[in-house]
Amino acid sequence: MRIRGVARRTLQVGPDGWSVEILDQTRLPFEVVVHELRSLADAAEAIASMRVRGAPLIGVTAAYGLCLQLREDASDAALASACKDLLATRPTAVNLAAALDAMRAAVLDLAPRERAAAAYAAAARLADADVATNRALGLHGLRLLEAAAERAEPGAPVNVLTHCNAGALATVDLGTALAPVYLAHDRGIAVHVWVSETRPRNQGASLTAFELGEHGVPHTVIADNAAGHLIQRGRVDLCLVGTDRTTAAGDVCNKIGTYLKALAAREGGVPFYVAVPSSSIDWTLRDGREIPIEERPACEVGFVSGRAPDGRIALVRIAPDASPAANPAFDVTPARLVTALVTERGVCPASAEGLLALFPERRSSRAAAR
Amino acid sequence: MRIRGVARRTLQVGPDGWSVEILDQTRLPFEVVVHELRSLADAAEAIASMRVRGAPLIGVTAAYGLCLQLREDASDAALASACKDLLATRPTAVNLAAALDAMRAAVLDLAPRERAAAAYAAAARLADADVATNRALGLHGLRLLEAAAERAEPGAPVNVLTHCNAGALATVDLGTALAPVYLAHDRGIAVHVWVSETRPRNQGASLTAFELGEHGVPHTVIADNAAGHLIQRGRVDLCLVGTDRTTAAGDVCNKIGTYLKALAAREGGVPFYVAVPSSSIDWTLRDGREIPIEERPACEVGFVSGRAPDGRIALVRIAPDASPAANPAFDVTPARLVTALVTERGVCPASAEGLLALFPERRSSRAAAR
Repeated sequence: MRIRGVARRTLQVGPDGWSVEILDQTRLPFEVVVHELRSLADAAEAIASMRVRGAPLIGVTAAYGLCLQLREDASDAALASACKDLLATRPTAVNLAAALDAMRAAVLDLAPRERAAAAYAAAARLADADVATNRALGLHGLRLLEAAAERAEPGAPVNVLTHCNAGALATVDLGTALAPVYLAHDRGIAVHVWVSETRPRNQGASLTAFELGEHGVPHTVIADNAAGHLIQRGRVDLCLVGTDRTTAAGDVCNKIGTYLKALAAREGGVPFYVAVPSSSIDWTLRDGREIPIEERPACEVGFVSGRAPDGRIALVRIAPDASPAANPAFDVTPARLVTALVTERGVCPASAEGLLALFPERRSSRAAAR
Repeated sequence: MRIRGVARRTLQVGPDGWSVEILDQTRLPFEVVVHELRSLADAAEAIASMRVRGAPLIGVTAAYGLCLQLREDASDAALASACKDLLATRPTAVNLAAALDAMRAAVLDLAPRERAAAAYAAAARLADADVATNRALGLHGLRLLEAAAERAEPGAPVNVLTHCNAGALATVDLGTALAPVYLAHDRGIAVHVWVSETRPRNQGASLTAFELGEHGVPHTVIADNAAGHLIQRGRVDLCLVGTDRTTAAGDVCNKIGTYLKALAAREGGVPFYVAVPSSSIDWTLRDGREIPIEERPACEVGFVSGRAPDGRIALVRIAPDASPAANPAFDVTPARLVTALVTERGVCPASAEGLLALFPERRSSRAAAR
């Protein structure tokens, strides 16, 4: 990712070799603030307050949170307690649990004094693996954009509709749903992205628009409400979104509002693709209705954060003080509404068989789970 | 409508007998400001800037705008020019044109010196007719809520999902989609309204929540994105929305985002009702795709208005300065997604035959139009 022209990752170890630098996503798009994590508590706070968000990035941040804890106290008790604290920060993303499992496996059999160094090495592997996964996923998705470009009118761009932020800022780098967009743009394919603002937290307007703009990708911000109309009027060639958790049968749990776009895409005959790094697949679940949906604070609906005329970031109230609000953070798009899943191993139908064809090693685990 | 405990209409003639008082809807829900219209320009500005909005209220406001002009200059040229100016303020609502047609018919054959008084009388008739229409429509819709209440679990309210504001504030009084809700609530039927905030202008969060709260109707504000999830999880018993223009075949053009809710309702097996005062029916159109969709300024998407911590109303920027935005203000919900239309003459299927059964006098005009 390039930020103000400089290449950097969304999360990276600081120059001191142990603290962790993140881009504070609660300050974007108006302020580029590098926020330093120096303790487990810092990491947990950064996840819970959504300074970092996006399933892959949450997982890697948690991994480094564990490193920070093991640097201070590498006992079994501290390890267990840290995993518990980190797991409690966000309930929906499956990457969080998977990253913590991988970290625990990397250090559990070691003597406490060896654990911190091993943890940093394991966390770095997770971070690098995320970038490699996104690049592979991006190359598979690129073919879908290339095919759409061939179908497009001469001179017209491929119009991609996305929701929330499944870009570089949701990962360590490059992104999932936006990886094919960046790769296509860099190869000279004309791409234009409809950026759904993604109320209540506006990750589309504030993060996706920001990173597309920094990279030079043409885009237009729309209210979430406008997606159906644009699809209906033929102004969208394909939808491409991320996922926080994907079931073994291809149901997709992503940011609230994704389901509505999938319905509109089906109605409009527009392909609806989901970028699925395999880390987001929960092989233990088939039915998306079993996924716990995080209910976030009502104040996220009642207030909007933005830049005030004086340049400061301000929170303004948009609903009457006496009106309660509900704030489910995710919804489930059933596999039948998904045209295909784009994974790091290829593109497949949104079905158990589709996924197992790409991840055959999971056949045995499914059989074992029966 | 009761505002701060006092009964008043959204628009009423002032104590001087000629100026027109409106509630300035750009200041709600935080400030109750009565704004005075004293000229045609004031009325046109109030409509274009959405100090008044909602198809029925726009029509009556335009009617009074004509009165204000005829008071100053009642010539044929002034009449024609005023109608043209008023018609240009908002392109989608059909009520505007109908109200101006009625006004023109009421004054055109009169001598100029008689026109102003006749215009005020005609505008008052339009205002009173709007309230009578809404009450009749509300009583028909009430039966749908009563039926839903009988199906609801004992002790559970009827959960109504609405979008935008089709309440008292969208009309002279009582509202269209909210009329059945108010009548049900006043009769002791437990009703709870999911209020979709309605980006980009937040008429749900700022107006619908305000007027429901003032009236004491239980409600919960949600992001527009949450509607699909709530329907999917069985938390909505019925949808009830307004319409800015309805075709003779039952296609409905309403606030952007309505179409997405209709798709979710069909998918979830939840009835999707549209409150249709006959003034919103465009008998000359069958296909909703022919309705011109107003593209409003991009700044409505890039900025959000709300109450800052210091109590003042502030506009905050939520997207990067360099990111363009698109802002279609309405979308079309095809009749096949609409369970039924609720009119002042009764409830009917969303179809040409359904509407003609209630409005048989239109059969001849259709035949004549062929």
